[in-house]
Amino acid sequence: MKTIRSYLAGGWVEGGHKSGAALGGAAAQTLVNPATEEPVAEVAGGPVDWGRAVAHARTRGGEALRALTFAERGQLVKALSKLIHAHRDELIALAIANGGNTRGDAKFDIDGASGTLAAYGEVGIALGKTKFLVDGEAAQLTRSVRFVGQHIAVPRQGVAVHINAFNFPAWGMMEKAAVALLAGMPVITKPATSTALVAARMMELVVEAKLLPDGALSFVAGGVGDLLAHLDGQDVLSFTGSSDTGQMLRAQKDVVARSVRVNVEADSLNAAVLGRDLARDSEGYSLFVADVLRDMTQKAGQKCTAIRRVLVPADMVEGVREDLVERLGAIKVGDPAREDVGMGPVATKKQQEDVRAGIARLREEADSLFGGDGSVGEAVGVPTGKGFFVSPVLLQVRDGKSARRVHEHEVFGPVATIIPYSGEARDAVAIVARGEGGLVSSVYSDDRAFLGDMAFGLAPYHGRLFLGSSKLAGHAVGPGTVLPQLVHGGPGRAGGGEELGSLRGLAFYLQRTAIAGDKPILEALFNKKPEDAA
Amino acid sequence: MKTIRSYLAGGWVEGGHKSGAALGGAAAQTLVNPATEEPVAEVAGGPVDWGRAVAHARTRGGEALRALTFAERGQLVKALSKLIHAHRDELIALAIANGGNTRGDAKFDIDGASGTLAAYGEVGIALGKTKFLVDGEAAQLTRSVRFVGQHIAVPRQGVAVHINAFNFPAWGMMEKAAVALLAGMPVITKPATSTALVAARMMELVVEAKLLPDGALSFVAGGVGDLLAHLDGQDVLSFTGSSDTGQMLRAQKDVVARSVRVNVEADSLNAAVLGRDLARDSEGYSLFVADVLRDMTQKAGQKCTAIRRVLVPADMVEGVREDLVERLGAIKVGDPAREDVGMGPVATKKQQEDVRAGIARLREEADSLFGGDGSVGEAVGVPTGKGFFVSPVLLQVRDGKSARRVHEHEVFGPVATIIPYSGEARDAVAIVARGEGGLVSSVYSDDRAFLGDMAFGLAPYHGRLFLGSSKLAGHAVGPGTVLPQLVHGGPGRAGGGEELGSLRGLAFYLQRTAIAGDKPILEALFNKKPEDAA
Repeated sequence: MKTIRSYLAGGWVEGGHKSGAALGGAAAQTLVNPATEEPVAEVAGGPVDWGRAVAHARTRGGEALRALTFAERGQLVKALSKLIHAHRDELIALAIANGGNTRGDAKFDIDGASGTLAAYGEVGIALGKTKFLVDGEAAQLTRSVRFVGQHIAVPRQGVAVHINAFNFPAWGMMEKAAVALLAGMPVITKPATSTALVAARMMELVVEAKLLPDGALSFVAGGVGDLLAHLDGQDVLSFTGSSDTGQMLRAQKDVVARSVRVNVEADSLNAAVLGRDLARDSEGYSLFVADVLRDMTQKAGQKCTAIRRVLVPADMVEGVREDLVERLGAIKVGDPAREDVGMGPVATKKQQEDVRAGIARLREEADSLFGGDGSVGEAVGVPTGKGFFVSPVLLQVRDGKSARRVHEHEVFGPVATIIPYSGEARDAVAIVARGEGGLVSSVYSDDRAFLGDMAFGLAPYHGRLFLGSSKLAGHAVGPGTVLPQLVHGGPGRAGGGEELGSLRGLAFYLQRTAIAGDKPILEALFNKKPEDAA
Repeated sequence: MKTIRSYLAGGWVEGGHKSGAALGGAAAQTLVNPATEEPVAEVAGGPVDWGRAVAHARTRGGEALRALTFAERGQLVKALSKLIHAHRDELIALAIANGGNTRGDAKFDIDGASGTLAAYGEVGIALGKTKFLVDGEAAQLTRSVRFVGQHIAVPRQGVAVHINAFNFPAWGMMEKAAVALLAGMPVITKPATSTALVAARMMELVVEAKLLPDGALSFVAGGVGDLLAHLDGQDVLSFTGSSDTGQMLRAQKDVVARSVRVNVEADSLNAAVLGRDLARDSEGYSLFVADVLRDMTQKAGQKCTAIRRVLVPADMVEGVREDLVERLGAIKVGDPAREDVGMGPVATKKQQEDVRAGIARLREEADSLFGGDGSVGEAVGVPTGKGFFVSPVLLQVRDGKSARRVHEHEVFGPVATIIPYSGEARDAVAIVARGEGGLVSSVYSDDRAFLGDMAFGLAPYHGRLFLGSSKLAGHAVGPGTVLPQLVHGGPGRAGGGEELGSLRGLAFYLQRTAIAGDKPILEALFNKKPEDAA
C-alpha cells in the first residue's frame, strides 16, 4: 500500500505528527476508498523538525522566489498548470478512488486546479519584469510639490502555510499555491489527511519535474504539530475548513502574538433565490433548477459554495418541488467509478455521520420531500452495507418565520432546504441575511429591478453573488464554481476571508508600503516601466 | 469639576463601566493635569445597556448613513472638520490641561483631527453621488462574452467600534471616525480615559451642532464592559494602543467566533537610518537631526510613529552624538502651558513609571548620552515633585550585535537609542528588521542607490517609509506625522493593521463583493455614471 510522506526542508520525510480532528484530518491514518471502505494509502506518523522546515522554506524558497520577477513566477505557475493537466487522467483516477468522486466530480477538482494555475500564470506574465507592484498614483502630501507619497507592494519575507479542506484536494491546494507562489512567497501546504492521495501525487509530480526552486513548495502529510508556533509577522496562514477549526487557528496564541496574517474560509449557508417573474417554462427557471440540482449532487454536496437554502415564492413552491423531486429520483447513488452513477459517497465515515445528524436536525423544523433521512437502501455497484453513502435529501421548512437551523447549521452533503417567501426582494434579503454571512448566493430572475434590489441587498453579506437570468442559460457556470477572476470568501460565518479575484488575491501575500519622499527620487525608484524595474 | 459622560443610543448617559487597564484606560476615574496632578474632570461609572447602544447605532445610525451618497457623507465629514477647527483654541487649551501637551503638541493633535476629516471629506465629495464603489473593470469569466463579473464594495451593515490610545485624543478619534462615517458605518468611539477631556469636548460639540444623523457617532466614557460580546460579522473593531491589549481584543471569543473584522495598531520600534554620504553640513543631515529631535520631544515622545532607533554609520556617531546632545540640552522640560517650555510631562503616573522602567531596561545594554535615567531635577513652572515628567534620554548601544532590548521593547516616551552600523544598506536593513515589523522608518541620504536598496529592503517590514534627502529639507513633514493620503499601520509587532491611505482606508468598512451575471444586466446595474447611480 502506498505510504504518503511529507516533503519538507527539501526532502521526503516520513509523515508529520499524527493528525488530530482539530486540523481537519480524520484521526485515522489509513486512507480508504469511501465507496468500498478498502484501504488505498497510509500516512506514516513520526517526529518532524518544524523549525527547520519553516526556516528552509523561508530562506531557500523565499529568497529564490523573490529573486524572480512576477513574469518569471507566472511562468512557473503556468508550468505547474501544464504539469497537472498532463497527468489529468492519473489524478482523476486517484480522486475517484480516494475522494468518492464521480469522474465529473474529479474533473471539476483537477481542472479547477490546473485552470486556476493557468489563470494566475497569465496574471503574473502580464505584470511583467518587475519584482514589486505599484499601487495607485503618487500623491502630493503637503503644499510642496516636491513631497510626494507612492504606495508599493512587495512580497512578505515569510512562509505561507496553507491548510486545506478534504473536499478539493487538488483545487484547494493549487488555488492557494498559485497565488502565494506568484506573489513570491514559499508555501507549506497541508491537505486534509482523509483525501490526501491526489494532493500527495501532485506533490510527487512537482518534485519529480523539478519545476520549482528548492523550498518553494513543501507538503505536510498528517498533522502540523507545532508548526504554527514557528510563524512570525512576515508569515501568513490560510485555512479552508470548518468554522470551529478556523476559530481555533485564528485565536492561537502564537498567531495572535506575532500578528501572523490569517485568512479563513469556513461555513456558509449559500442561498439560491428564485424570482417570481420566472415562468416554469422559462430558461431562467431551468437554469435555477439545474444549478440547485448540480449543487446538491456534485461532489455529493461537499462544496463550500453549494446551495443549501432554496428560496421560492410561496405560490411557486409546488412546481419547484415537483421538478426537483423528479430529477433527484433519476440520479443513481453508488460506486463513483461506474459511468451510470450520478453521485458517489461522502468522503469519510465521520462526514456521513455528521450529514445524517445534520439532516435529523433540519427535519426538526422541515419536512423531507425527497430522500427521507438520507439513508441509501442499495448503493449501485457496492457490497451491501459498505461505503459512506448519503441519499440526496430535499427538505422544506414548515414555518419560514420560526425556522432557525436552516440558517445556522451547514449540512455538508447532498442536502438542500426549500424556504417559501413572499416574492418580494426585501423579504428574500432578510431571510438570506439570517445566514449571517456567506461565500456566495444566487438570484434567478429576468426582472432587472428585482436583480438590482437583491444584489445591493445581499452584497454586504457575501463575497460573491450570481445573478442568473434567461439569456445567461448555456453561457454561465453556476454559483458553486469558484473562479480565479472573482474573489472567494465571505463575512461572518463564512470566516471573514478573501482569496483569488485576480490581482486582489495577491494582497494577502504582499506588504503594502507607503513611501514618502522627494518626487524625482521616488519617480526614479518606482515609476520605471515594468521592463526596466529592479 | 466636569463630569465626562457617554453618549449612547442617542443620549448622554452617566459613564460606561469602570475602566480597567485592559482597555487602555487608567484604573483611576479622575482625570488630572499631568504637569500639576490637579484634577480636571471625572468619569462617572455606571451600568450601560450595551446591547441597546449597539442596536441603536446599527439601525438608526447605519440606516441613516447608508441612505446618503458618498458625496453627502463627505460633506458631513467636512463639516466635522470645520466644527473642530472652529473650536481649535478651546480644544488646544484642554489638550494642554489634560494631555501634558505644549501648545505645539496640542495643535499637532487637534489640527491632525481637522486635517484628516477635511481630507476624507474631499475624498467623499470626489466619489460623487453614489452609494457603492465599483472595484476594477468587469471581467469576462468563461469563453462566453455574456458571462462577466464585476466587483463592487458596499458599506457593512454593522457598527464600527473604535478604541483609541491616550496620546492622540483628537486625531485618534477623528482619523478613525472620518473613514468609517465616509464609508457609511456608524461609530462607537472610546478614548483612553486618562486623556479623554479633548475627545469628550469634541463629542459635545458634535452633539450640540447636530451635524450627524442620530446614531452615527456614539461615545464611551470609561470602560466598554461587554460591548464586544454584542458584535457580529457585519461589525468591525479598530484598536490603537499596546500590543498586549491588541492581542487580547483580537483573540476575544466573541470577536473570533463571529469573524468581527479587527484592525490593530500596536507597538513599533521605528528606526531612522543616516546614510554615510550625508556630510555634517548637508541639508539632509540637518533634516535627520531635526526629525530625531522632534520625534524625541514632540508629545514627550508619546507617538506610535516616533523614532526609537537611530542607525548611524560608526564613523559618524561622534558627530551625531554631539549635535543631538547639544540640542537636547536646550529643551526646557516643565509646565507645557508656558511658552518657554519645549516638552511637557508624559500622560500619566503609570506612563512615567513605564518609561522610567523602560529606560532602565535599555541601559542594561546601552549607555546614556543625555538625560541619565530620565529623572528631571526641576520641572519649569511646576511645584517641586509634582507632574509626570521624564527627561529626554539619548542612549547608545554598547554592542550592536548582541543588543536585543532596543529592538524589542518600545519605551513610549522621550527616548531614542543610537545604534552604530557599517554604512552598508544590507546591514542597516538587517538591523532594522530585528524590530519585527513597524509602522514607519526613515532613511536619510542623497545617494539614490542607497535609498533604493533601503526602501526595497525595509518595505516588507513597514507600512510606511520616509526617504529624507537634502532637497526635501523644508518641504516635508517628518516620518512621525501620519498623513491621510498614506496608509498607517505595519506588520508583525506593529499589529498587522492598515488604516488611512485615502480610498484604501475605506476597504476595512466595506464588503467587497464579486457579482457575476449577464453582461448587459451588470452594466445597467453597476456602470452608471456616479451622478445617476442609486
